[in-house]
Amino acid sequence: MTSERKQAEWMRIVDARKEESAGVDCEIRGWVRTRRDSKGGFSFVEINDGSCLGNLQIVAPAELDNYADEVQKLTAGCSVVVQGKLETSPAKGQATELQVTSLRVLGWADPDTYPLQKKRHSFEKLREWAHLRPRTNTFGAVMRVRNQICQSIHDFFHENGFLYTQTPIITASDCEGAGEMFRVTTLDLDRLAKSGGPVKYDYDFFGKPSYLTVSGQLNGETFATALGRIYTFGPTFRAENSNTSRHLAEFWMVEPEAAFFDLADDMQLAEDFLKRIFTDCLNHCAEDMAFFNERIQKGVLEQIQSVIERPFGHMTYTEAVEVLENCNAKFEYPVSWGTDLQAEHERYLTEQHVKGPVILTDYPAEIKPFYMRVSDDRKTVAAMDVLVPGVGEIIGGSQREERLDVLTNRMAEAGLNEEDYWWYLDLRRFGTVPHAGFGLGLERAVQYVTGMGNIRDVIPFPRTPGNAEF
Amino acid sequence: MTSERKQAEWMRIVDARKEESAGVDCEIRGWVRTRRDSKGGFSFVEINDGSCLGNLQIVAPAELDNYADEVQKLTAGCSVVVQGKLETSPAKGQATELQVTSLRVLGWADPDTYPLQKKRHSFEKLREWAHLRPRTNTFGAVMRVRNQICQSIHDFFHENGFLYTQTPIITASDCEGAGEMFRVTTLDLDRLAKSGGPVKYDYDFFGKPSYLTVSGQLNGETFATALGRIYTFGPTFRAENSNTSRHLAEFWMVEPEAAFFDLADDMQLAEDFLKRIFTDCLNHCAEDMAFFNERIQKGVLEQIQSVIERPFGHMTYTEAVEVLENCNAKFEYPVSWGTDLQAEHERYLTEQHVKGPVILTDYPAEIKPFYMRVSDDRKTVAAMDVLVPGVGEIIGGSQREERLDVLTNRMAEAGLNEEDYWWYLDLRRFGTVPHAGFGLGLERAVQYVTGMGNIRDVIPFPRTPGNAEF
Repeated sequence: MTSERKQAEWMRIVDARKEESAGVDCEIRGWVRTRRDSKGGFSFVEINDGSCLGNLQIVAPAELDNYADEVQKLTAGCSVVVQGKLETSPAKGQATELQVTSLRVLGWADPDTYPLQKKRHSFEKLREWAHLRPRTNTFGAVMRVRNQICQSIHDFFHENGFLYTQTPIITASDCEGAGEMFRVTTLDLDRLAKSGGPVKYDYDFFGKPSYLTVSGQLNGETFATALGRIYTFGPTFRAENSNTSRHLAEFWMVEPEAAFFDLADDMQLAEDFLKRIFTDCLNHCAEDMAFFNERIQKGVLEQIQSVIERPFGHMTYTEAVEVLENCNAKFEYPVSWGTDLQAEHERYLTEQHVKGPVILTDYPAEIKPFYMRVSDDRKTVAAMDVLVPGVGEIIGGSQREERLDVLTNRMAEAGLNEEDYWWYLDLRRFGTVPHAGFGLGLERAVQYVTGMGNIRDVIPFPRTPGNAEF
Repeated sequence: MTSERKQAEWMRIVDARKEESAGVDCEIRGWVRTRRDSKGGFSFVEINDGSCLGNLQIVAPAELDNYADEVQKLTAGCSVVVQGKLETSPAKGQATELQVTSLRVLGWADPDTYPLQKKRHSFEKLREWAHLRPRTNTFGAVMRVRNQICQSIHDFFHENGFLYTQTPIITASDCEGAGEMFRVTTLDLDRLAKSGGPVKYDYDFFGKPSYLTVSGQLNGETFATALGRIYTFGPTFRAENSNTSRHLAEFWMVEPEAAFFDLADDMQLAEDFLKRIFTDCLNHCAEDMAFFNERIQKGVLEQIQSVIERPFGHMTYTEAVEVLENCNAKFEYPVSWGTDLQAEHERYLTEQHVKGPVILTDYPAEIKPFYMRVSDDRKTVAAMDVLVPGVGEIIGGSQREERLDVLTNRMAEAGLNEEDYWWYLDLRRFGTVPHAGFGLGLERAVQYVTGMGNIRDVIPFPRTPGNAEF
């Protein structure tokens, strides 16, 4: 708040737990995690307010007016307002504790019906309570790390002169060929079903078939070729019937695009970007990261640290295929020049061969989209995929084709209609420039940093086939 | 970039234009705005690269190899790479200019077909070229200010301990009653139309009717009542057939929500928030803001400054209605206790009566949604609207009803089905706490700061009835 704002009348637990807060009289507001009654005539209650992973232990003496009626009835999930004095704690693992002078219960949580009891629940089970799971240690920590990653994304691009540009969510272009799209309509489906057809799009909101975006890239290019450096960061959609731990129907994607950047600039940007995000998580979410390292994925701290410390390796796709063809590893999918690499290949390259992050470049033109820049050999394009140990591809990008004639040839080969792309081609007709960009799926990044196994557990309310609850 | 990154090999114009850059040898990359040939044997070319409003003037001597063939053929929109030395400029309004040693043309822009010639185009016309309009002074400035507002939003909440929380875009709840919603489906509409009905939602992606969100608030409350302070910032949708200068079918909204905040805390948060955004725009976008003040809305700087400097006024709705009933102004819509205030009433209050920003509170329960907290008088709710001169309402918010019995009564009165809100009611069943929040439409804020008259001109690609082009 600005200096004009009165100090908030209560202290957040992230501050109350600091050593230097000992001696301070304060008020705490939060939710009970556990209660333990001591024979000595007082109760220890652990309070959490979401500001950090750790709880504040409060020591409530039997002398409190409501000790028998309320304090001794506190259970997980109850909300309380507590006043008292912070003192240096004799207990391990906490710098301070609160000696209570007053405790007021705001809301009870009936232990017979409140789902989040001390018993551990599986992540699958917790998805059914997506409205309550942020009250658990794991999901609180995930959300704080996710928040830090988002802030680092904005800070990194802001500091480097990239403008945040919101590209449209609803689009009438169904022509990017990037998987199945959701339809958006205001037509009454029940009446439509009875109509016998044909569909009268004149009566639909946008006057033509409309969809949810699968990428902001093409729109982003229009702004990069005007303002220099931009990035999009928003929701993106895939109507793929994929019930896997790595797919969501709705996810957030960040897509920088920079005029005058070639592939080398793009790769350096991606490396700096990932290192910045990971460094910020280690520096600003140390407590949460220690939790993930201990409880979710042993070694995740070391894995992230190794990405930060090493310069990324570089290999062409052609070199990578040679390595894969000549290694002794057994792969489920065969590999040869011209095939798309599978996760198993990518992971072999980054984990076994390079033993660190590696950027693959110069993929066959035939397996990459029309907008990637054709190389002098005519067979490859200026694409790059960033591979990291533990997951494989985390970022995909390319230099874009800025030559009008080459681009229209590629579109013809791909069976695309130039008229659908009149505005995209205009960028090459008028003052065309080399430019490049990449895409990072936010949830994939959160999974990587936290070690969480299922992508549905790193987004507030996952949307997957059959599931749009909450 | 990190220190590891090689200095980019070219200088951005925002840096090249600084006084202290005089004397530096550098490369510039950008687009031609104008060219003027001097009789003295050289040409002045204005270059812009989007990094700032102002152009860099380059002085290209006739001695250049390509002077006749290329330099003298440069027109608006051509892309160039220019090398030379920055010198202190003798001309007014610019600290530096570039003495050219080499100029390379990357892309031409045929003046017979390139739409953005020196001639001024109306904003209406420019909407047809939404892919090119960021190349104009006005839209470049709008996008830089919009970017600054977004960054200020993130910074403000981050610094105050609010977690950025992405609430879902696709939702199966159609029950918030906040206007018309878009349907999202993977059903083949052409086949559906021929089917004769009924609609088989089992075959739709989510297995039930699904929509685009109109607000992230209810989902946001689930996270605030777990993590304390959160905010959403994402796209929001209204399928209203409103062809006005203030409505979009797709717009971005920021919605903070904070546990343990009452209405007073909420109002202070809104005031601090607006002041921070406006202050940042004045401090970090001074050149763009001067442009808006001169070309778009005279006095916009003063208007924003006055919002920053004054403490916001406070009035209850009841007091406001008394003022309106007893003033001499002529209103199109009559006003009496229980009616919703119109823009004309709001503007009278902030512009004529208070002569500054004012927060109206305690609206009649009957004209406000079910989730707002019922006051002791039973007739009003703890709502607040922030009104500012020049536009009227810019922020709307409330303390939320945290009492389960009062909330379910309000829902019954509103004809809402408790089962549809089982998860929202759980927040009151288990550890309920007072909490509050508000909503700000990003585009309304950008309009206010820039003085732009039409909301379609402050978003990259506006979506309105009949328009989802690009």
